[in-house]
This record gives sequence, C-alpha cells and structure tokens, in this order.
Amino acid sequence: MEPYSKTNNIIKNSINNLNLPKNVKIFDTTLRDGEQTPGVSLTPDEKVEIAINLNNIGVDIIEAGFPISSHGEQEAIKKITSLNMNAEICGLARAVKKDIDVAIDCGVDSIHTFIATSPLHREYKLKMSKEEIINRAVDAIEYIKEHGLKVEFSAEDATRTEIDYLIEVYKNAEDAGADRINVPDTVGVMIPRAMTYLISQLKKEISIPISVHCHNDFGLAVANSLGAVEGGAQQVHCTVNGLGERAGNAALEEVVMSLMMIYGIDTNINTEKLTEISNLVSKLTGINTQPNKAVVGENSFAHESGIHAHGVLAHALTYEPIPPEIVGQKRKIILGKHTGAHAIQSKLKELGLEVGKNVSEEQFKEIVNRIKDIGDKGKMITDADVIAIVEDITKRTIKSKRTVNLEQIAVMTGNKLIPTASVELIINNERYITSKVGVGPVDAALKAIQSVIGEKIKIKEYHINAITGGTDALAEVIVKLEGYGKEITAKAANEDIVRASVEAIIDGINKIMDM
Amino acid sequence: MEPYSKTNNIIKNSINNLNLPKNVKIFDTTLRDGEQTPGVSLTPDEKVEIAINLNNIGVDIIEAGFPISSHGEQEAIKKITSLNMNAEICGLARAVKKDIDVAIDCGVDSIHTFIATSPLHREYKLKMSKEEIINRAVDAIEYIKEHGLKVEFSAEDATRTEIDYLIEVYKNAEDAGADRINVPDTVGVMIPRAMTYLISQLKKEISIPISVHCHNDFGLAVANSLGAVEGGAQQVHCTVNGLGERAGNAALEEVVMSLMMIYGIDTNINTEKLTEISNLVSKLTGINTQPNKAVVGENSFAHESGIHAHGVLAHALTYEPIPPEIVGQKRKIILGKHTGAHAIQSKLKELGLEVGKNVSEEQFKEIVNRIKDIGDKGKMITDADVIAIVEDITKRTIKSKRTVNLEQIAVMTGNKLIPTASVELIINNERYITSKVGVGPVDAALKAIQSVIGEKIKIKEYHINAITGGTDALAEVIVKLEGYGKEITAKAANEDIVRASVEAIIDGINKIMDM
Repeated sequence: MEPYSKTNNIIKNSINNLNLPKNVKIFDTTLRDGEQTPGVSLTPDEKVEIAINLNNIGVDIIEAGFPISSHGEQEAIKKITSLNMNAEICGLARAVKKDIDVAIDCGVDSIHTFIATSPLHREYKLKMSKEEIINRAVDAIEYIKEHGLKVEFSAEDATRTEIDYLIEVYKNAEDAGADRINVPDTVGVMIPRAMTYLISQLKKEISIPISVHCHNDFGLAVANSLGAVEGGAQQVHCTVNGLGERAGNAALEEVVMSLMMIYGIDTNINTEKLTEISNLVSKLTGINTQPNKAVVGENSFAHESGIHAHGVLAHALTYEPIPPEIVGQKRKIILGKHTGAHAIQSKLKELGLEVGKNVSEEQFKEIVNRIKDIGDKGKMITDADVIAIVEDITKRTIKSKRTVNLEQIAVMTGNKLIPTASVELIINNERYITSKVGVGPVDAALKAIQSVIGEKIKIKEYHINAITGGTDALAEVIVKLEGYGKEITAKAANEDIVRASVEAIIDGINKIMDM
Repeated sequence: MEPYSKTNNIIKNSINNLNLPKNVKIFDTTLRDGEQTPGVSLTPDEKVEIAINLNNIGVDIIEAGFPISSHGEQEAIKKITSLNMNAEICGLARAVKKDIDVAIDCGVDSIHTFIATSPLHREYKLKMSKEEIINRAVDAIEYIKEHGLKVEFSAEDATRTEIDYLIEVYKNAEDAGADRINVPDTVGVMIPRAMTYLISQLKKEISIPISVHCHNDFGLAVANSLGAVEGGAQQVHCTVNGLGERAGNAALEEVVMSLMMIYGIDTNINTEKLTEISNLVSKLTGINTQPNKAVVGENSFAHESGIHAHGVLAHALTYEPIPPEIVGQKRKIILGKHTGAHAIQSKLKELGLEVGKNVSEEQFKEIVNRIKDIGDKGKMITDADVIAIVEDITKRTIKSKRTVNLEQIAVMTGNKLIPTASVELIINNERYITSKVGVGPVDAALKAIQSVIGEKIKIKEYHINAITGGTDALAEVIVKLEGYGKEITAKAANEDIVRASVEAIIDGINKIMDM
C-alpha cells in the first residue's frame, strides 16, 4: 500500500517544503527505559528473550539496560552481547567512570552516556555549573572512545535547557568524538512543532546524526518523535507498547507505522511481527495494552457500529487506515447495541442463513431488535447469544447438540489444602469422571478437563480481563484453544472466576469439535 | 503553574507566529464515539451517570449518543436532556430525516449531522455523486434549523477528501445555516502539520467556528487535535480515556492538559477531577487504562529508577512536567531493581529509621543490595519485603506483630454447589471460626473474613490485574480498604486467585489496624 504522503493531497501539501530523510534508525529502549516502568522487573532470561525478538524484528540498536543499576542487569546484558546479534547492543551510563567501566565490562558495542543540562537539574539534582557539566560530558565521551566503543551522548532534559547552552553542550560532545547525539524530552513537555524547530536549529550546528527520545506525559511522544524527524532527526528512541517511566516513551509500533504509512520513510522493521512482539512484552512485563491502543491493541482493527461494519464489509479501507495484516493483526466485526443490519446479515451467513431465503424479512428485523436489546442492557453479544436468538425466532436448530457437556464440576482450595478439582463430562453420550490438583482452583479445574479431553485439544492461552469493582463483579475469561489443526477463541463471563474459566474452555472445545 | 509556552523558549519560538485562540471548547463524545468502542455497552443509567460527571467537570458539549441506534439509546438521551444541565446536549444523526426526527424527539439542544465526502466512501459506501452528497447535507441542515436546533455538520472522512470539494461542502453547510463545522479524521491518517494546514485553508473560506474530531489509529489523535487548534480550530472532540472505535479518539485529559499547560489555552474543564472521571469511565465501560496512560494512568506520576526518584525527592519538577494534584493524581515512589539509595532512604524514614543513627552505613548498603536482588528476580517490592529485609539486617523489630492472622481458609465452588468459604482467624490471640457463601469463591472467602472483622473495616475496591499466559500465571490482586478514618491499598500475588485475594485483604486489615 502506498504511503498517505503520496496519495493524500493534504499531507503532501503540508510536507512538500520539508527535507525528510529516506530512512530512520530505530533505537529500542524497551529493556532500559521500558523496564524502568514502575513495577516492572524482568529476569535476565526474560530480557534475553525480548532482545532476541527485537533483533528479529529488525531494530537497529538495542539499549539492553543500565549496567550499573544491579548485578542481574549486568548478567542480562552479558548474555545479550554474547549472542552476537545483528543489532548494535548499547548500554546506558551516567557520565561517570564507574558506570562506563561496568558497561564496557558487559561487552556492549556502544554506550549511551548522559548528563542533565537544564537549569532545574543543574541546580537541584547535579548542583553543578554549566562548565562543569560540559567538562564531565567531554571526559566521559573521550574515555569511552579511548576504549574503542561507539558513543551516543544525551543532554538529559534537553528540551528544558537554554537553547544556546544546549548547542554548546552538543558541539563539545561532537568535538570530543561522540558518534551520535540524542535529544531527550525527559518530562514530555514538547509539541511536534517545537521539536521540528529544535532539531532544525541543532542541525545547523551539528554534523553527526541526531536522535530523539520523547516521553509521553501529555500523550505526544509519538507525534514529537515524528516532529523531530521533520526537523532532520535520523534516529528515534522507542519502546514496545510505549512502556517507560511515568506515562512512558514513544511507542515503537506507532512510530514505525507512521513513518512508513504516512510519511513513506523506511525503517528496518518487519512490521508483520509488531503485534507478536507487543504481546510478548505484555506477557513478560505484566503490563497489558489498552484495547484501544493504536496499531497493536485488541480493538485497533475491530468494528462494532453499524456504519463502520457496513463500510468495512463493502471496502475495508473505508474504516481502516491500513490493512491489519501489515502489522500482524486481524479484522474483527463485533456485535453490540450499535450494530447495524449489515453486520448481523454477515453473521447469519456464517451460520448458513440468508435473509429472503431461510430467514424472512420480518424474522430478520426481530433478530436485529433482540440483539440490540441485549446491547442496551450493557452486555456483550456472543455467538451463542446470536444462535439462541435465531433459533428462538426461526424455530430452527442452527447447530448440532454440543459434543462435550459439563455435568458437574467441583473445586476446592485454601491455605492448608491442595487446590483440587473433580469433573464429570459427557462426551458423545459417554460419561467421564476424574479429578486433578493444580496451583490454584482454576488451574486444577482446567487440568481435570484437559485430562478427559486428552492431548488433541490444548489450551494455548488463558486470559482474564482486569476486574474492578467489588468481589462480586463479573469476571471475563478469554481462552485460546488449539486442536485438529484449528485455533479458536472462546469467552465466558461469570461472577465466579472458576465457573467463567470452565465455561469458556468447554465452549471452546465444542467450537473446535463442531467446526 | 505557568504554561510552558511562557517559560520554555523552544516552545515560545516555535509558536510565536501562530494566531492561537484564547480558549477552546470541549465537545465530549465519550457517550457516542466512546461507547462505540467494540465490546462496550452502557445501560441508560450508566450513560446518565457519566453525563452528570461530564457536566460537572465543565465539558461544553456532551454528545449523548446516536439516537437512531437503539431504544435504550433514546431512553438514555431523554433522561440526560431532562436534567437541564449547563452543557449543551447533542445527538448524532446521519443526514437523513428519520435519524433527525428521532434525535429531535429526545429533546437535544443540538444535532451533529454528518455525511461522508471522501472518494472511497462516495464510491463504496454511499454510492452517491458529489452533488447528491451536498444536497443531502444541505437538506438535513435546513431541516434541523427549521426545528430550531443548533447544527454541527461533519463531512465524514474529511481528511481523505479532495480539498476543493471539501471546501465546497463546508461552504454549502455554512450557507444552509450550520452553526459549526466539524472536520473528522475518520481513520486517523493525519499528522499535526497536515491538520494545521487543512484547518488554516478552511479558515480562509468558512466564518463559523471549526471543530475537529481525530482518531488514534497511528497514535496521533491528541497531537492532530492540537495541530488543528494551531491552524485555528476553536473546538475539539474528545473522549475520556481516548475511548472510541478501533484505536479510539483524542483523549480528553491529554487534550485539555496540553492546551492548558503547554500552550496556555484555556478550557472550561476542572482539571482536578480528570482522574476521577477517568476511573468512573473505566469502571462503567470495563476498559481500563494502561498504567502508562498519560495524565490519568496509574503510573503517570510514579517513579522507580534511582535517578528519577532522587530528582523528584529534591525537586518534583525535575521529573514531573506538572504537579500531580492539578489532575487529581498523587506522586508515587516505587521500589524495584532500578531504585537508588535516595528512594530507599526515604522509605526507611517512613519506618522511623535513619542512616547514621539507627541504621549503619554498612547495614544500609546491604539493605539496598537485598532490595535490588528481589528486583533482579523479576519481582515487585512491597512494604512488607522492605520491613522483612530491614528487620533481618538490623535485628530490630520494625512493626508490632500483625494483629490479624489467617490460620486457615478453605473454599469450594462448582456448577452444582454454592460457593462456600470457611475461615479461621486469630485476632489479638483470640480464635474466630466462621463460614459464608458468596457468588464465587473469592466473594465467599472475603465475606467470611468480613463477617469476623465486622463493619469497622470495609472493602471499598477489589481489583485483579489482567492475567495473560497460562492458568498457572500469577494473579495480582489489589484491594482498597477503609476503616477507622483511614484508607489503604494492599496487594498480593499468588498463582491461586483465592489465596491472592485473601492475602491482600488480611495484609490490608493489618495495615489499617497498625497505623
């Protein structure tokens, strides 16, 4: 698909006097700034797993960590550098020898060294003069270069620094031998226009490549990174899912897709793997993306409203900026109170029903109304709801009887007993009874069911949506099952988390068996 | 606090040739576009509750819904209009009589009517010519004006429409009597610079106020809305938490705070209530914000890394763009593998310990190392961890013995038995045994504990973080308890969701009793 800057005149006209780079390098700091997300800690092995995947998607530089911060951090970085990846492996170091020595010892290709330059940081944090800061920066850069490593130098809080002084700092860094300078918007106060202005001012004075590092305190990290590229930046610092301190950093997936699909600027990223790496990072950090997260969110290619679903069914690009496959996503049409007749017609087709043929116009109207009624009650509409409504109105059986039926389930747990579940299933009229233990009641229940079903169907993923409210709030469980060459997702909601889990699994097993 | 456009020269220089408005109106569409978030359905009462809160925070216009979409929607809008709020209540309608009639019947102050104008939508969705579309728009606007209502007119997919035709459409809308035009970036393909360009082009031809409606498919909805204001837009469409179709809409909290704290442009929003309304919308829609969500996220004012925590403890603005109180948030210092000595010193002070006084320098070093070791194992560090480490190293008891101890808990549930829990607690050396039933195993367990503790301590909130992975993944439970005039939060993680819940509650009860 051609970038919007080629096909859209508004964008074309707005950027035609800019001197945009042909490509931009991606400096990923998921393992450093991303891991500094409050509450996130990765084990060395988890860091290595993420690094391997970052290298595989084509990230140019991996900032693997902040070596001085802990022994585990050093261990992780050493493992990563030992793998000889294509990506440049970088370590963070304050502009002090002990940090730099520890980083060198980890075997990194390059060191990202920094010192703060803004008045607030000079006065309250560093308690150093402007000259002292420049000297410290120059000493650090020279020391790293003496050891034969690449240097990326950051003036921390650059965007709140006096611009004349900032230029002086960066010029000194370049003269000292820095290979790249990086401009951090440390507390995220910039706007895109200001980033374009700042970088173009720096460009006049600096000849080594300029990188930017934007924080998201006002929700502008991605736009500010793009604004910097408009001003001439050739490298952008990103994190997967926009993780990072406070409101996080520029999200890699959003920066890459904007550069590619709007500006037509290349990166080395294999975009089809973006959703996969987003899921991996969510899993390992425990920080899930919102459903409405751009590019990689669960809903970012989901359509519920009648108008949108109708449009997408006629021509996907009416309500999608790009085809979902480009980022490893899938289109979803979801039924709800806003659903229109077109989406419901398309759902009926999946069930082998056609309006005018085996469903009358009048029956169809009734089906639409009943579906919207469920939505009006604040509920999600599942395939099972649709089938029940259609069966009721058309008096016809849509699907054969469920293959697997749960007769009984009982589980117990506590602090002085082993979580145990017993289960009675009826499969094709045969009765199976068994029990299993697990690490918790849900685990025990699902292990019991699994032991009856055998290895042909496997639970690939188990997900509980966050629950907020009281202990009697609805728990929503989503499971992914694999079996007989098929992969399906099933969902159930219940105030009892064990029952919700079991219902989702049984529903999923039946879906696989019935397909 | 003064806006950055006054104190920051980079921003000041970048916007000094713009003609920025003094204030911007906030058109909130949480109840329309926000509710179209796939999977979200609100009951009429929930919609009313959100509307009341939107009105209270000072939103100028509330788009209360899309009346034609369902009966429940009409019921909700009628309830909202009957409350005679300060905010203008608006209803969405396609440019067709039946939609407009239903909206009028709901008693709205204004109607937001729309028709698509882009080539893709003309050809594949509407199958109408350019002229037919203009006629349809004009008819709708005139029809609404005849009924004495205000009209806001949108050219759907405006940003992918030929600019000459778009201007023609909007001029016709103005001539037909529209009070405002709105420019939707329907699939979120714009960049800020292009929005500035587009709006300034429209400004030359249109004299009624211009509004924008930006989608977030590339993560640029907020920046594009601000870009539009730079071009002369006087109104911005927003949703709380950025909810909406696909990747959502411009987040109200980010737009408002950027306008106010960066540009110095006023809105009528009471910013101190932003976090509260964000939490309300999360609760009612079931869509939680990411921890790293800007402005209102759980982490947006949380600091873990040593450098940041040190800076913030010396002067908050070193690592915070604005004081958290402005948006109803609180600063949090979180301990983890990146934590430095300063944050740990500050935590020890809370426990009544001071380095050099009752903790030696050597003991302190050991405490710091032990805390980082926990972080290296990928774990979060709780207050209880810190107390255990300090007690172990200093051989001094930090806190009195826990008041409430859980001796035994056992729960059972299933599809043919009532979720039941029995519990044995020891409180101040007295033994209490009881059992209770609940809607699920967690509910039963907590009801049993509650019945022993009595009404003096109450569980105000119960939250489970989303779980992804297998059924043996760690479940993290966070509870908020209230009692004896105090409110505390406690947390526990366990593979068994029942045990995690019980541990968090018991820990919280002890915290309240010990304070």
